[in-house]
Amino acid sequence: MIETSRHPPAEDGFRFARAMAAMSQSSLRELMTRASRPGVLSFAVGLPAAELFPVHELAEAGARVLPAEPGALQYAIPCAPLKRQIVDLMAARGVHCRPEQIFLTSGSQQAMDLLTRLFLDPGGEVMLEETVYDGAQMAVKLRAPNILALPTGLARGLEVTAAAALLEGGARPAFLYAIPSGHNPLGVSLDAGRRQALVELARAFRVPVLEDDAYGFLNYDDDPPPPLRALEERWVLYLGSFSKVLAPALRAGWIVVPEELVAHLSALKHATDLDTPSFSHHLISAYLDQGGFAAHLALLCREYRRRRDAMLAALTASFPPEVRWNRPASGMFIWVELPEGADASDLLELALATESVAFTPGDAFAVGASRHAAHCFRLCFTASPAERIEEGIHRLARALAAYLAKSRAARR
Amino acid sequence: MIETSRHPPAEDGFRFARAMAAMSQSSLRELMTRASRPGVLSFAVGLPAAELFPVHELAEAGARVLPAEPGALQYAIPCAPLKRQIVDLMAARGVHCRPEQIFLTSGSQQAMDLLTRLFLDPGGEVMLEETVYDGAQMAVKLRAPNILALPTGLARGLEVTAAAALLEGGARPAFLYAIPSGHNPLGVSLDAGRRQALVELARAFRVPVLEDDAYGFLNYDDDPPPPLRALEERWVLYLGSFSKVLAPALRAGWIVVPEELVAHLSALKHATDLDTPSFSHHLISAYLDQGGFAAHLALLCREYRRRRDAMLAALTASFPPEVRWNRPASGMFIWVELPEGADASDLLELALATESVAFTPGDAFAVGASRHAAHCFRLCFTASPAERIEEGIHRLARALAAYLAKSRAARR
Repeated sequence: MIETSRHPPAEDGFRFARAMAAMSQSSLRELMTRASRPGVLSFAVGLPAAELFPVHELAEAGARVLPAEPGALQYAIPCAPLKRQIVDLMAARGVHCRPEQIFLTSGSQQAMDLLTRLFLDPGGEVMLEETVYDGAQMAVKLRAPNILALPTGLARGLEVTAAAALLEGGARPAFLYAIPSGHNPLGVSLDAGRRQALVELARAFRVPVLEDDAYGFLNYDDDPPPPLRALEERWVLYLGSFSKVLAPALRAGWIVVPEELVAHLSALKHATDLDTPSFSHHLISAYLDQGGFAAHLALLCREYRRRRDAMLAALTASFPPEVRWNRPASGMFIWVELPEGADASDLLELALATESVAFTPGDAFAVGASRHAAHCFRLCFTASPAERIEEGIHRLARALAAYLAKSRAARR
Repeated sequence: MIETSRHPPAEDGFRFARAMAAMSQSSLRELMTRASRPGVLSFAVGLPAAELFPVHELAEAGARVLPAEPGALQYAIPCAPLKRQIVDLMAARGVHCRPEQIFLTSGSQQAMDLLTRLFLDPGGEVMLEETVYDGAQMAVKLRAPNILALPTGLARGLEVTAAAALLEGGARPAFLYAIPSGHNPLGVSLDAGRRQALVELARAFRVPVLEDDAYGFLNYDDDPPPPLRALEERWVLYLGSFSKVLAPALRAGWIVVPEELVAHLSALKHATDLDTPSFSHHLISAYLDQGGFAAHLALLCREYRRRRDAMLAALTASFPPEVRWNRPASGMFIWVELPEGADASDLLELALATESVAFTPGDAFAVGASRHAAHCFRLCFTASPAERIEEGIHRLARALAAYLAKSRAARR
């Protein structure tokens, strides 16, 4: 349980639940506010490209579905046609499943929240990478869990052998959370061998692996390895999302689970926000019916590849040799490692002040209060056109040069 | 904490969080499945009239907002124009507030979930009426709370003096949940005097009152009393919803709270489903901009009044004198009390089998496993046109006559 100093509330103060002590504004969100000031060129937030949203096709779908199906606005059971369409999408990812195994959510974040409520007791054990998407950390935080932090890195991702050692040593986490493809924030994808090793662990120790595949449809190089769920049906629970491939504000995600879990998730979702379809789910279903989604995905991959390559080229051209980064095959992010001892938050202050350019410091993704990623930062390459990316990276390079020079001077 | 028999899981079984023992499919939902079979005339579910949804106006709003504002599909801060529009709606309910006090939710159920997470510790104390909306019970259930059940009834609603006695005796619940207008399931509205007494209690004992006003805009008689929030700004947290007055699948609700609570709710919502606007919120904002909402509300009140009166007339014409019900001034429900000893679930079985007509037995709304409402049932009068209501109540009256005759025969 969380330790809090329970000062008696002020005379007119509200008394909060104890677990609220673990909650604070996510630093990503605070940063979003600062970095979204007009005039800032921001690579901070993981935004899909708004100018590529298929607005006309969605408007067409809305105009079709609304007068024809007033039931799409009513309380009802979750949208069955969308479940069938997701089964087809999953097949394109090499995952075979049935509509009865699809559970629709209000985005992937809700999937994380529901699965956390399903499996994790207050104070229970859970396995996360030491550097991982802060939204996943937020979802488990209210349980004040004992987090078993797994080593990870931009070269190979999650160290599966470390998970194996903990499990062999007796650890029995409620689940292990992983982002095998286009990791947020590291940009890395697990290779086929590590995927195989991970599902074998899940199976052997009966530990559910929550596979967050939010970026799995955004692949820029040949032959991405299959999702974990393609290798293991029972112990891999697959989290999918339309947020990155269609539009975030439609708040539509899904989980692929063994059918026996669906009733439990439905009861939980009922308690949380009623397990009734959102109009968005009907809208997406009508949009998918129109048949343009494969072409839309291809367009996204083409354009995002161009943006990734523009960012990589600009980094190579303008960043000093002591800085490292990776070449992501999937997803939206490049992870940059400054020399040890550098502080990316200080660099951000400087970059905002002198060059009006923004990124997310690694601290935002470090599990616990660890500062192991303080010298790192995340760049999102999908939110800006290639020309803006080139300009922004060059501005950032100037800020970085100034920062490194100042650091060297300070050390003398 | 919840007591569970923690059998070791089966060889390939999932290990669930302990609190899951409190979760089961809501009986309302199971009933929905049964009562929604084709051919059943159902008064069971609290559905607004789908044929009155303003589908063309919403389609128009969607066609306008989508190409013009691709940002409406993006991750962003919650929809500011909608907050301002809600301030105006609240003024029409006699509530004065500012946009900074509005927190947007994915329907009222999410408001209940977030406020429960904010205030209620596991095993903590909470005040509910002994007969109350099962969704509110679901929201608190995962906390395995100690529920202080307050007497209530179809004549006057929540017994405020009972709440006073408990508070004076030392009870300090995390909150008291109330539906002062058009109570679900009882149909009753608190009179002005009891409203005043309730907010005075909230103020004196610093107990937040969660005022669920989902039905507050649906008034059929003159001069409804003001919401509690109009009488007390700090200790009344107001829950509003577009589900009953626009369309449920838009999943749009709001809370009016002291501004200091907004950041806490935002952090909780971020952990739950990301605190980003849903496209629906932008759609509703565009719809409200078109200026037809007041007329739409007036249409709903006119038509629902007609349906209420049709149901009351049919009950008077066909139900035996030993059965009691009320005349709701607001909302969607009539509560029917059979003679003590009758079992509404048995009547439902008979009514489904012989007359294909459905309602919701009182047990679905009884707090705990109490059977104090076993002889009662809830009728929803908004979901069917007046002619269908007349037909359905006459069919139900036949089933009831058969049931009562059978009961009398059994007692002889």
